[in-house]
Amino acid sequence: MEHIQAAVLHQFNEPMRTEEISIDEPHDGEALIRVVASGLCHSDYSVLHGILRSELPAVLGHEGAGIVEKVGPGVTHLKPGDHVIAVLTPSCGHCPMCQEESPSLCFETFKTMVGNTMLDGTNRLQLDGRSVRQLCGIGSFAQKAVVPAGALIKVDKDVPLDKVCLIGCGVTTGVGAALNTAQVKPGSSCVVIGCGGVGLSIIQGCRIAGAETIIAVEPNVAKRDLAMELGATHTIDPKAEDARKKVREITMLGTHYAFEAIGRIDTVEQMWGMIRPNGLAVVVGVPNPRDEVKLRVSGFLAQRSMKGSAYGSAVPTRDIPRFVDLYRKGELKLDALITARIGLEQVNEAFEAMGRGEGARSVIVF
Amino acid sequence: MEHIQAAVLHQFNEPMRTEEISIDEPHDGEALIRVVASGLCHSDYSVLHGILRSELPAVLGHEGAGIVEKVGPGVTHLKPGDHVIAVLTPSCGHCPMCQEESPSLCFETFKTMVGNTMLDGTNRLQLDGRSVRQLCGIGSFAQKAVVPAGALIKVDKDVPLDKVCLIGCGVTTGVGAALNTAQVKPGSSCVVIGCGGVGLSIIQGCRIAGAETIIAVEPNVAKRDLAMELGATHTIDPKAEDARKKVREITMLGTHYAFEAIGRIDTVEQMWGMIRPNGLAVVVGVPNPRDEVKLRVSGFLAQRSMKGSAYGSAVPTRDIPRFVDLYRKGELKLDALITARIGLEQVNEAFEAMGRGEGARSVIVF
Repeated sequence: MEHIQAAVLHQFNEPMRTEEISIDEPHDGEALIRVVASGLCHSDYSVLHGILRSELPAVLGHEGAGIVEKVGPGVTHLKPGDHVIAVLTPSCGHCPMCQEESPSLCFETFKTMVGNTMLDGTNRLQLDGRSVRQLCGIGSFAQKAVVPAGALIKVDKDVPLDKVCLIGCGVTTGVGAALNTAQVKPGSSCVVIGCGGVGLSIIQGCRIAGAETIIAVEPNVAKRDLAMELGATHTIDPKAEDARKKVREITMLGTHYAFEAIGRIDTVEQMWGMIRPNGLAVVVGVPNPRDEVKLRVSGFLAQRSMKGSAYGSAVPTRDIPRFVDLYRKGELKLDALITARIGLEQVNEAFEAMGRGEGARSVIVF
Repeated sequence: MEHIQAAVLHQFNEPMRTEEISIDEPHDGEALIRVVASGLCHSDYSVLHGILRSELPAVLGHEGAGIVEKVGPGVTHLKPGDHVIAVLTPSCGHCPMCQEESPSLCFETFKTMVGNTMLDGTNRLQLDGRSVRQLCGIGSFAQKAVVPAGALIKVDKDVPLDKVCLIGCGVTTGVGAALNTAQVKPGSSCVVIGCGGVGLSIIQGCRIAGAETIIAVEPNVAKRDLAMELGATHTIDPKAEDARKKVREITMLGTHYAFEAIGRIDTVEQMWGMIRPNGLAVVVGVPNPRDEVKLRVSGFLAQRSMKGSAYGSAVPTRDIPRFVDLYRKGELKLDALITARIGLEQVNEAFEAMGRGEGARSVIVF
């Protein structure tokens, strides 16, 4: 056991407290990493505000990258000194979803994503004798983290961890939604609603896939500018004009693909009127799971479809190295996504800015 | 101009009248066929009862097969004596949908399917000086029909037209939904709600695709028996048990694919609870286009999707010969689907039986 600094959430809707907590050795099938950098994702914000629930106290943060310090028994694919990106699925390899090449839906993810624990249901963090949860089984708003080894993907040592950490969640969620879930075709048309870190990554995925028309819908002008920089061919300010009508004006028939990257029912439903016959609307954002989406039957008669995208339908062992490689080649732009580099003690301010819709991604650099 | 016998609908919810009408020569891009046989489809029933609308008077029937008697100017792929199946899309080849290999959504189909006319907006049938519409631009409840030539697919002369006529609509809609729209994978699990001609064809498509588990949901015992004969591995009587629960009992996680072949909102929505994470629900039936389908967000979070299937996503020049071939090989069973062979004058009785949920398919043999 050792002692580390971490941002700990004790009460929803209250600031996290940066304090010293203790961290255990990694157990079977786990690894201890020194966190080098962690992005701030909107899902952290949702937990912070109790929209997504977790037992508390908890260390948030799940978009982390670091260096392996110690591996637990049975871990053979990692060794101390390896550079790794933490991912959202432990990819158990044994459940029906992993066996059907859908590790993004790995059943073990329920433990890490819902329980915010390790795979055995316990945690490696303590504060004043109480167990502390780790968001998504990661908890990267801390100097160190013990993570299920299946959720740590090794990357080459020449890539900057304070950039590629974004691939851990937002970038894979977005790029994967375009490349894996939708399988966007060259020459096609796409509309992306919401240009946070995920939406901007979807735009990049659409560009990488060779889409001809990429329309970004976003009220914040700085994010619209960033969208153009990253691959959008058109932008729409939904506060100034009717986004659905404008998409129809640009594309006549509607787009081949639409992506919702906010997590609001009204914008999910709006996609149905934006896509053309045979078009595909992809739900990337995370609305309240108990809410309902209403879709007109006429859309189905024109062979439209709506599909959810979980973690960009990623196969991390395939996709993380692939996305790192796209970053290295300059095709996947991460630097532009990072609008602030902060220290752990600035984490609360950064989430306040996120709440105001400012910036794309803040990254804590340890 | 010549005179033929046809079943003419003058008023919704009244019997059709078998009477003599006149038929014109085929115009540019059209062909005159002698109808050999025509299936009775549920969409005819919907028009008969005003659920789907058409200008009247009209000759219904759109699941026809026959022999070409005369071709209009510009028709090069057909000649007198050719055996043909009439299909639901004129496959213009020029609209965006045809160019994107989705001729089942050909824009010209709006003229034939909604207007019930030829592609120039006029008709070739008259009664007492009035123009008579032809359902889907076909109108096969008549001894002869003029049809847009793109909607006539040539078949070998050795196949019985009074069987393969079913491929014109119901069989292609069903088999295509499984093979084209859903692209059912070998070893997968499927549930099909509703076992009329379309549902039974979906079951056959799932079997041909190599599905391991095929569950048929149908209240009529004779249709459930037919479902087992045609490839279902399990049946559920939705009047006797909760179909969703039973599907979960059989498959644990839910099925990979679900198909709704009735056209009811409640059963479309029911599919959402029958499919497993990553599963696909396909809307094959035709509910009221203005109604709304309500889907829980949680389904999207588990990467479920719902897609409409229009005419089995068929590419008729590819699929009709392929399905005829599957019939010839004994893999696609049409004879078992035909529960009654009738004359034109029995058409009203046959629709009354359909209204009572009896039998799979009646075929008019001329």
